[in-house]
Amino acid sequence: MYYPEPISKLIDSFTKLPGIGPKTAVRLAFFVLDMQEDDVMEFARSLVNAKRELTHCSTCGHITDQDPCAICQDTSRDGSVLCVVQDPKDVIAMEKMKEFNGKYHVLHGAISPMDGIGPEDINVSDLISRLKDEEVEELILATNPNIEGEATAMYISRLVKPSGIKTSRIAHGLPVGGDLEYADEVTLSKALEGRQDL
Amino acid sequence: MYYPEPISKLIDSFTKLPGIGPKTAVRLAFFVLDMQEDDVMEFARSLVNAKRELTHCSTCGHITDQDPCAICQDTSRDGSVLCVVQDPKDVIAMEKMKEFNGKYHVLHGAISPMDGIGPEDINVSDLISRLKDEEVEELILATNPNIEGEATAMYISRLVKPSGIKTSRIAHGLPVGGDLEYADEVTLSKALEGRQDL
Repeated sequence: MYYPEPISKLIDSFTKLPGIGPKTAVRLAFFVLDMQEDDVMEFARSLVNAKRELTHCSTCGHITDQDPCAICQDTSRDGSVLCVVQDPKDVIAMEKMKEFNGKYHVLHGAISPMDGIGPEDINVSDLISRLKDEEVEELILATNPNIEGEATAMYISRLVKPSGIKTSRIAHGLPVGGDLEYADEVTLSKALEGRQDL
Repeated sequence: MYYPEPISKLIDSFTKLPGIGPKTAVRLAFFVLDMQEDDVMEFARSLVNAKRELTHCSTCGHITDQDPCAICQDTSRDGSVLCVVQDPKDVIAMEKMKEFNGKYHVLHGAISPMDGIGPEDINVSDLISRLKDEEVEELILATNPNIEGEATAMYISRLVKPSGIKTSRIAHGLPVGGDLEYADEVTLSKALEGRQDL
């Protein structure tokens, strides 16, 4: 045992976080020792609070400290457009854009037969019952542009089609600021396929 | 405000750590939400404990949860050899080597006129009184091999010389496993200078 116990426990805790190896964990732990006591207490409290106070919104599945979440409660938002995303972080990304004024539905995952994740393992059934109860006119499928995300979007779109609700998929193409030269073939082919009249 | 308050506070806390930018902080905060509650509590507790229970050993200045520290208390160690290092982490590095059986003195810094750090700002006076009180025969100066570390080693060595205590400086040279081709000139020159008979 090289380290006094309190610090070795702190190092262990840091090591459990993703992307933090043993050397970084040591550096962070020693940094904590040099921090103001108030800041450390605040850090500890924010860990406990984030874990204890946050739940998933029973309506849309987004993380929230009140149920239903602020977005679901917001009457100024257009409830007729529902954006379906995989993850709470995707809601944040959409909100940062400041252009979408509809509501969300968070799936908490994507269909992935390789990993044994089927439609029943993600938040699809809640989506279907929302479509029945709420007056939704358009479903924007904003799952990730990869195999799992595509499969999930396809699955939901087929499931919803009979109900007559319009479903759309966010566009694939070249990222803004990107370079045609370095675009991969699939993206380029999607960008060509999705070309729009000027 | 994109995030519910508890998670944005946690993100802020993570952002205060060194080397953790806003994106990593978000990733870590969301990881915490998915962690077991027990692990999060353990993490919070280890933060508080590390900050509250650890102090600096009043003898050597190493971080410890008991005073004097385990190394200073260890009677099987040779108190006649004192290794002077800049930082508690350096003590850990020396201990990992498992070859040094003397005791330590941690300076908590190095002399750096550029940053306004003089001899009175580091733990030198304690070192001098230890040299008077304890029966020290050799002082190994293991400060970092950079300008500040060299200056500090030189300063201490001159200060101690009149007392007749032997002072030595850890060797400079090529790191084991290194490559002569890629060694910088100063290191190579030091390696040549410090050559030893075979």
